[in-house]
Amino acid sequence: MDVDLDYYTGQLAPLTEKGNYESAATLVADLPNPDIAEILSAIDMDEARRVMLGLDAKQQASIFGYLRPAVQAEMASGMSRRQLAALFELMDHDERADLYNRLSDSERWAVLPGLAHAEREDIRQLASYPEDTVGSIMTSAYVTLRPDQTAGQALDSIRLEAPDVETIYQSYVVESDRRLVGTISLRDLLLANPSARIRNLMIKDVIRSHASAPKTDAARLIARYDILAVPVVNDDEQMVGIVTHDDALDVTESESTADQHRLGAVARLATSLSESTITSLYRTRVGWLVVLVFGNVFSGASIAHFEDLIARIVSLVFFLPLLIDSGGNAGSQSSTLMVRALATEDVHAKDWFRLLGKELAVSLLLGLSMAAAVSVLGYWRGGMNIAIIVSITMILIVIVGSLIGMSLPFLLTRLKLDPASASAPLVTTICDGTGVLIYFNVANLVLNF
Amino acid sequence: MDVDLDYYTGQLAPLTEKGNYESAATLVADLPNPDIAEILSAIDMDEARRVMLGLDAKQQASIFGYLRPAVQAEMASGMSRRQLAALFELMDHDERADLYNRLSDSERWAVLPGLAHAEREDIRQLASYPEDTVGSIMTSAYVTLRPDQTAGQALDSIRLEAPDVETIYQSYVVESDRRLVGTISLRDLLLANPSARIRNLMIKDVIRSHASAPKTDAARLIARYDILAVPVVNDDEQMVGIVTHDDALDVTESESTADQHRLGAVARLATSLSESTITSLYRTRVGWLVVLVFGNVFSGASIAHFEDLIARIVSLVFFLPLLIDSGGNAGSQSSTLMVRALATEDVHAKDWFRLLGKELAVSLLLGLSMAAAVSVLGYWRGGMNIAIIVSITMILIVIVGSLIGMSLPFLLTRLKLDPASASAPLVTTICDGTGVLIYFNVANLVLNF
Repeated sequence: MDVDLDYYTGQLAPLTEKGNYESAATLVADLPNPDIAEILSAIDMDEARRVMLGLDAKQQASIFGYLRPAVQAEMASGMSRRQLAALFELMDHDERADLYNRLSDSERWAVLPGLAHAEREDIRQLASYPEDTVGSIMTSAYVTLRPDQTAGQALDSIRLEAPDVETIYQSYVVESDRRLVGTISLRDLLLANPSARIRNLMIKDVIRSHASAPKTDAARLIARYDILAVPVVNDDEQMVGIVTHDDALDVTESESTADQHRLGAVARLATSLSESTITSLYRTRVGWLVVLVFGNVFSGASIAHFEDLIARIVSLVFFLPLLIDSGGNAGSQSSTLMVRALATEDVHAKDWFRLLGKELAVSLLLGLSMAAAVSVLGYWRGGMNIAIIVSITMILIVIVGSLIGMSLPFLLTRLKLDPASASAPLVTTICDGTGVLIYFNVANLVLNF
Repeated sequence: MDVDLDYYTGQLAPLTEKGNYESAATLVADLPNPDIAEILSAIDMDEARRVMLGLDAKQQASIFGYLRPAVQAEMASGMSRRQLAALFELMDHDERADLYNRLSDSERWAVLPGLAHAEREDIRQLASYPEDTVGSIMTSAYVTLRPDQTAGQALDSIRLEAPDVETIYQSYVVESDRRLVGTISLRDLLLANPSARIRNLMIKDVIRSHASAPKTDAARLIARYDILAVPVVNDDEQMVGIVTHDDALDVTESESTADQHRLGAVARLATSLSESTITSLYRTRVGWLVVLVFGNVFSGASIAHFEDLIARIVSLVFFLPLLIDSGGNAGSQSSTLMVRALATEDVHAKDWFRLLGKELAVSLLLGLSMAAAVSVLGYWRGGMNIAIIVSITMILIVIVGSLIGMSLPFLLTRLKLDPASASAPLVTTICDGTGVLIYFNVANLVLNF
């Protein structure tokens, strides 16, 4: 069931044109907040701001969290100091630290004085973690309990804190020095005897992440252990925040995007494709393209070495793209399968040798099938000699291409590099060079024979 | 913080060798269940089964849910009828329906009589939804409330049901005919006045999915609306189950794998790479490889058309792989970016024309950079004429390749096909054919001039 966003955008237009922002706000108020965010992103920014300011403060903060970063910054820059401070106070702590990092200095100074001291400290602390660390995506709004509280007392304090925290379904037990010593779910608290001590109810081996770890670490733990949130500690094992499952899902999505881009030989984009500028897109692509040009020089050099042969039998060139591409295609299939299997921990670096035999068998079958297809073509174009040359070449090229494609991700892993750097274009280029050598050597051998 | 799994595997060996399965079970019992599942998967299956049967029944069921499907089936087939029935009774409802589908007929008949009538009906119902539908991944263990209950009564019934359901943090409000009319979070229930009616507390516009919808629909709703679970209804809007966030995350991961495989021109694997047989791997790869061979025949045919030119200036062949590969690489970069942007809804089918101008600008810049690099090489190999030919060709090839690569995913979307079918090998093959034509036509023109 999806909300028809175009319908609402259409209904908004006449209202905002007449300056009737209050009715416009009422029209969308009951929709889910992510949908309101999408509708507001699609209309004029000044009008979107006015419609949003017609909603209640808590809903404003939630909608704001669903806007794209660039839209957030633009919308914030048109708000009064008081409006911005009110918004900051109610936003999720992790999102407001993000926004803070994206504001100009003057905007920051407009916001900070309107906030309480504790909130200012909180923003400064969260905003200080480097991007891509767990610290940069954690929130400081969670429930902590003490080991000597009773289950009944704990439920009371959870009720009190509920309006201000991101999740009440998991609480964290800390000692007076903030060392994390346990965790307990709301489910277990509800089922427990109200007079039982937290110390005796809590789970003591807490899955935890470190603030300085890469942010994928928190996402991985949440996925592996099916938990709602993972607590984050600093180097002294003191609790400093939590990462919630929805933020982890965002990390997983953006990592998956980065992986796919690498597989397509595109560097990491700082923002989404639709928001990227021409120069930033140029920069993410030019590096690999130029590197690959120089890789292809080897293919060219191999060809130059065989110029006499080519001049003698020009029809060999007919099969050149077909044969070398087939090797590249088989190779990029193999590397695609391995890169993803390594990323999802389906296979591990130590499995390379075990998988080599399987790859050899699969690629032999593939090579034989393709040789059958191409031999007919070879016979038709150049007679029996050419048919023999292209068939033998095809089998060798597919096997060698597959082995290169499946081994490269393992080699990169061993070198502590990202296996996804074994992109289809890189594998294709390497297989092309090898393919040229195989082709003309086979041709020479068969013709001399 | 990760558990050192190798350490535990090493500690288990001497215990299982001596047949001391009870101590072995005690050794791992306090670890998180996903870790126990991984440790048991790494040791002999018979021994793993005996270690597991030493744990308490509830933990057995949870660990079992984390085993890979093939391991589950193998382990289940070695259990007694009574053990299997006990396991079934405690497993998550969605997982046991999955397992049921994977058992042999005789194993099913061994299990079913040991279960209560309601459980049997539940399994039959869940197992009846086709794979890939929302119905196939939903669970029937959730809390339902009635609109005329009070918040206090609702909390009491949640406490009662807590041990048997997957989540108590979101409850669903149904009328007596099971029509879904609202939802309420445990958080709101805890904060509400205990005598308030659910009818007045619940959220009435419930995000919902349909049992017959593709399973990605449930995953998408959970990600978009940051919810813990999405309720599932049948065609009569009656509630039949929920899909929880952890099951949705599994769907997202496996879809991401399928997308990457398609981008590498590999068909969907029925199981993980490490469990795939040689013949199933062959089948997922051979189709595209053969199709691409015939695509490459066009490149070959273009080359045949220019055989006289090639025989006259054999050094043109030196640049052939380099130039056509550059077009293919630029094209697969563009298609990679577009496929992912379309999949994450960053861009939409209607944005094609708007993005075309940007692509043109980026690819012109890329073409100029690469022409600069390759012109030096051209001058060195074949003098001014060749330098001019390869520079002009490079610019045109990169622009045309990029435009093909960025347009193909849009075209596939328009044809209601999966844009990820615009795989790097397909784009490369199309760009290669176009590249050959551009190269030799430019060469002819420049040389005649």
